[in-house]
Amino acid sequence: MTGTLLLTKEEVRGLLHMPDVIAEVEDAYRAYSGGDVDQPPYMGIHLSTEAAEIDFKAGYHRSGELVSLKASSGGFRDNPGRFGLPNGMGTVLLFDGSSGALTCVMDGSLLTGFRTGASGAVSVRALARPGARRLAAIGTGHQARMQIRAIREVMQIDAIDAWGRSPEGARAFAAEIEAECGIPVTVAGTSQEAVAEADVVVATTRASGVVLRAGWLRPGTHMVAIGADQPGKQELDPELFRDARVVVDAAAQCCEKGEVQHALKAGIVTGPLDEIGEVLLGRKPGRETEDQITIFDSTGMAIQDNTTAAALLCEAKARRVGTYFDFLAPAG
Amino acid sequence: MTGTLLLTKEEVRGLLHMPDVIAEVEDAYRAYSGGDVDQPPYMGIHLSTEAAEIDFKAGYHRSGELVSLKASSGGFRDNPGRFGLPNGMGTVLLFDGSSGALTCVMDGSLLTGFRTGASGAVSVRALARPGARRLAAIGTGHQARMQIRAIREVMQIDAIDAWGRSPEGARAFAAEIEAECGIPVTVAGTSQEAVAEADVVVATTRASGVVLRAGWLRPGTHMVAIGADQPGKQELDPELFRDARVVVDAAAQCCEKGEVQHALKAGIVTGPLDEIGEVLLGRKPGRETEDQITIFDSTGMAIQDNTTAAALLCEAKARRVGTYFDFLAPAG
Repeated sequence: MTGTLLLTKEEVRGLLHMPDVIAEVEDAYRAYSGGDVDQPPYMGIHLSTEAAEIDFKAGYHRSGELVSLKASSGGFRDNPGRFGLPNGMGTVLLFDGSSGALTCVMDGSLLTGFRTGASGAVSVRALARPGARRLAAIGTGHQARMQIRAIREVMQIDAIDAWGRSPEGARAFAAEIEAECGIPVTVAGTSQEAVAEADVVVATTRASGVVLRAGWLRPGTHMVAIGADQPGKQELDPELFRDARVVVDAAAQCCEKGEVQHALKAGIVTGPLDEIGEVLLGRKPGRETEDQITIFDSTGMAIQDNTTAAALLCEAKARRVGTYFDFLAPAG
Repeated sequence: MTGTLLLTKEEVRGLLHMPDVIAEVEDAYRAYSGGDVDQPPYMGIHLSTEAAEIDFKAGYHRSGELVSLKASSGGFRDNPGRFGLPNGMGTVLLFDGSSGALTCVMDGSLLTGFRTGASGAVSVRALARPGARRLAAIGTGHQARMQIRAIREVMQIDAIDAWGRSPEGARAFAAEIEAECGIPVTVAGTSQEAVAEADVVVATTRASGVVLRAGWLRPGTHMVAIGADQPGKQELDPELFRDARVVVDAAAQCCEKGEVQHALKAGIVTGPLDEIGEVLLGRKPGRETEDQITIFDSTGMAIQDNTTAAALLCEAKARRVGTYFDFLAPAG
C-alpha cells in the first residue's frame, strides 16, 4: 500500500507513446471543461541565476482520483557546460486522491514537450479541414518538432514549410524532420512565405513580437498558437482573430496569458471564450464553414500533466517498469 | 551530479533533532524578514473525500541556494482503518537553486510538527520573561506536544496546566508529557483556570471559536498563538491584543489568516505588523517591559520547511543516511 513507484527519464521515454498522449490530453480537455478538475493558480520562483526559474503546477482529476504536481525548471543556461545537465528538467509527483499517499515520482523532463505537442494535434483533429495536407511551422525549436510528431498522428502531412528567426536553426529542423518523418520540408525566407499555402499553421516562437499578420493566411486555415503563455507575450497580429473561430484550452487563463489576450484588449474578440473541451464534449461548435479560419490558443494546463502522467503510471505498472521505494517503511 | 537522495520517514525521524530545528526556524525567520526569501502563495486542493486536502508550499532561500516544495495531505479520516496509513502525510522536494536539479525527496510527515513546535520555542526565547517557568497548554493534541518538546529546549518548565475540549484527550496529554518530560501536568477544568498562573500560554486548538478572553492572562505573560492559520479561524478574544506587544511570523500572511486578523478588523491592532525575524535581526523591539503581555501569531511558512529540510539533507549526507536514486540515469 505504501510503495512509491520511481520512474527515470529513460523509463518515461520508453513509456511515452504519442497516440496515447493525444488521447490523454483530449481527456484532460474534456474533464476540465466538464468541471471535473481542480487546478489552483501555479507557483513560480525566479532564481538568482539570470533567467532561471522553477514552476510548480498542481492538478486534481476528480473522477481519476489522482492529484499531480509537476515541478519544471528552465533557463539554467550554464547547466550543460557546468554540470553536464540539461538547462531545464522536470519532476512529476502523483498522489492517490483517496488517501493522499505518494503513488509515483517520475522524471517529468519529457512530459511537457509531449503533452504540449499533443494539444496541437487535438486541435487539428477537432478544427482543421478534413482535407488539410500542408503544414507551416513558424518557429523551428524543440516544440515545433513535438507539434509535427503529434500532428502527423492525426493528419496526413504531405509537405512542411518552415520559418524561424535563425536560418541555421530552420535548416537543422528541416533536415531532422525529413529524416525522422520522411516529410519534405522547405525553409521559407519569410514567415509570410511559409504560411502562404498552408492548411495548418503551427506557431511556436518565443513570442517576442508579432511574426504573423492578418491577411497572410488562406481561408480555411487552422492555426495552432503555442508560443504565448505569459502576459505580454505575442506572436500573432490581433487582427488575425477578426472573424476567426477562436477556441482556447482554458478560458480564464487565456484571457490573461494566451495569444488571445491582445485581441481581447483590442476589442477584436469579445468573451466568453469557447474551450476545446466544450467542442470535444459537443457543447460548442467547432469549425463552422470550409473557409473559416480557426485558431486554437493553448497556454498549457496542469490537468494535461495529470492525465498523461496517470496513463504513464498505469502503463509502467502493467509492464513492470520502474523501482518501488517505500517512504513509510519501518526502520530497517 | 544527478543523484537524488531519498529519505524515508524513519530516516527523517532519526535525523530530526529539536535544538537544530529551532536554530533552522530562527534562520528562516531572519532570512524571511531580511528579504532573502521568495515564497509564492500556496496551492491547495480539496479532495472529493470529505475534509481531505493536499497543499503545496514552495520556498526559495536565496543565499542557501535551495528551492523547497512541501506537499502535505490531511483530513483523510478513513486512512488508518482503510489503508493502514496516517490521515495526513507529507513529502518534501529540494531543488538545487544553481541547476534546478532534484537533490532530495524526503518523507515530510514529521517535518511540519517539528518546525511548528520550533516556531513557538523561537518566540519564547525572543519574547518571554527570563524567569518564566509555568506553561499553560490550551489544546492538547499533537501540536501541543510538539510545542512542549520544543519550548523545554529554551525554557525551564516547572509545571504545565493543560486544558482541551476533550477531558480524555487532556488526561492522555498529561500522562504522556509527564512520562516523557518529567514535568508535572495539571488538567484544568476551564481554559481560564489553565492560564491563571501561566508565564507562557500555548494555544493550539483547531480554532473553532474563542477559548481565551481578555483579562484572564497575568501581566507579563507570553502567548504563542498557533491555532489560527486560515481566514475565519479564531481562538483568542481580539481584546487580548489591546496593549499587547504583537509579533507575527509573516506580516502579509497574518493579516489575512492569522489570529491577529480579528484584532485588525476590530481596529484593536493597527498595522504595520512587526515580524519575529525583525526582532531577531534587532530591527524591531521585543518585549518592552516586564509586565507587558507579548503575543506571537504564527501561521507557518514554506521557508521554515526549506531551512529545516536543508539541514536534514546536510546531516543525512554527513551521516551517510538514505538511498541515492538517479532519475537521469541512462537506460540500463
